[in-house]
Amino acid sequence: MNPISELGPILQSLIVRADLALAQALPAENLPPVDLHRAMRYAALGGGKRLRPLLVYAAGHALGESGPQLDAPACAVELIHAYSLVHDDLPAMDDDAMRRGRPTCHIVFGEATAILAGDALQALAFELLAHDALAINCVEMMRVLGRACGAEGMAGGQALDLAAIGQKLSLVELERMHTYKTGALIRASVRLGALTANAGQGTLDALDRYGHAVGLAFQVRDDILDVEGESEVIGKTAGKDAAADKPTFPSIIGLDASRRRLSELTSEALDAIASLGARGSLLQELAYYAAERQH
Amino acid sequence: MNPISELGPILQSLIVRADLALAQALPAENLPPVDLHRAMRYAALGGGKRLRPLLVYAAGHALGESGPQLDAPACAVELIHAYSLVHDDLPAMDDDAMRRGRPTCHIVFGEATAILAGDALQALAFELLAHDALAINCVEMMRVLGRACGAEGMAGGQALDLAAIGQKLSLVELERMHTYKTGALIRASVRLGALTANAGQGTLDALDRYGHAVGLAFQVRDDILDVEGESEVIGKTAGKDAAADKPTFPSIIGLDASRRRLSELTSEALDAIASLGARGSLLQELAYYAAERQH
Repeated sequence: MNPISELGPILQSLIVRADLALAQALPAENLPPVDLHRAMRYAALGGGKRLRPLLVYAAGHALGESGPQLDAPACAVELIHAYSLVHDDLPAMDDDAMRRGRPTCHIVFGEATAILAGDALQALAFELLAHDALAINCVEMMRVLGRACGAEGMAGGQALDLAAIGQKLSLVELERMHTYKTGALIRASVRLGALTANAGQGTLDALDRYGHAVGLAFQVRDDILDVEGESEVIGKTAGKDAAADKPTFPSIIGLDASRRRLSELTSEALDAIASLGARGSLLQELAYYAAERQH
Repeated sequence: MNPISELGPILQSLIVRADLALAQALPAENLPPVDLHRAMRYAALGGGKRLRPLLVYAAGHALGESGPQLDAPACAVELIHAYSLVHDDLPAMDDDAMRRGRPTCHIVFGEATAILAGDALQALAFELLAHDALAINCVEMMRVLGRACGAEGMAGGQALDLAAIGQKLSLVELERMHTYKTGALIRASVRLGALTANAGQGTLDALDRYGHAVGLAFQVRDDILDVEGESEVIGKTAGKDAAADKPTFPSIIGLDASRRRLSELTSEALDAIASLGARGSLLQELAYYAAERQH
């Protein structure tokens, strides 16, 4: 199988499915409070790679599940991701004015509405997961998402990230930070898809190893793109991390070693799901995509 | 029964129970990221009236439930409340430097950590609710909390509140705003306690009427205290709302009419739970407390 930099037709159609489900799940723009609803939709529907919902769908497909019960977890992880971007972009945090090729949420709607929109997106994610149709694993899925978002997950990782500005981190410390900041939610996405398919413990563990490797690979690729990419291609300010004096894989181990680490992680991800054989094809495709994407 | 301004021994002991449960549920200060964990504990353990957890316990007690399964919802609603205060106090929002007689979270820990602490407190609230011990109603409780926090609840109310600054609201508009901003979570607190006790629909509806009236009464009292109270007593900047040109009950209908509305709402709350008789004594006490409290 050759490395790919763009997604194939099945994953493309799953992006459409995720976008439709998100558009339906989000509050209507014409209902008050209009500004809050518009900010929520702006943040969640403004393009994006949809990696997390795709991982939910791909994990479900790999285990024989493709039904509508995948849509709630797929939307939930993307809403959490969208809220985290809105808050991370705030002036008090990363202070970024550009995201996905558009002005960030607080630039368009103001800081107060952006903070509230992020808060409401997180609440909506949990509300969506709390759906009878999800049956037996619903409570476990809630716990997985809650842990992935909180102080022991994404929010904790962002705190470590802010604390790391200007610091000299080791590779181990950098990977630990990303394991929390982006890895926790990516792992949770795979796990939520697997739980929707009622996967057994062995499968959950294998998919956890896959999710961990893909999450880290995605971040290594992000750091490489931040060095190599052009703003108009990657849709955000290139060189931003370096400018912010943030530790990155290239800044700590160099570009070549970063590329080697990337292929290591991709191999780890593929090994973890080898036992799924052809059923794991979408997960394989996403592992390559995380490592090869151009934006 | 005479109006009371302070809580009796049973509710006082339930505050201790809530504080113990919160201290246990929150991440330890000595674990990284230390700043984030310290900010979360500072925000959630810094005193406060604990009205929402008390409503969870009181609703449970009224329906014969007093077991440990009340602690998770009691903590969850307080964590949501604590996160909302941290975010509402931010410079981009209400810009308040004093809360519960102490500097606000962003003054002590900085804006970035305060934003993240709020985010992590919300995630922890949902994670706590996602607990097998809560059994059958867990999913419904998640949905109740999610709806109460989001764009159709607390966050939406805060958006309406920000939009109302400098505006001339009618009494109906003001009450609608508070029904979202503070009412939704207070109603959810009562409902979560009732769902933990596996209440039937009729009881849930009656307790909803109670929660709605108590939530609004609490806010009317807040507005009256903002006019009458002294900062050192109410623990936050007195006259703050007037200074911020926020519409309040006294500013729209005057102090006397506000006091009359307060006793109306208290009667509504007591009528709603009359059928519970003596079993509703804690709920009665909280209805009086919401209306008569001195801070």
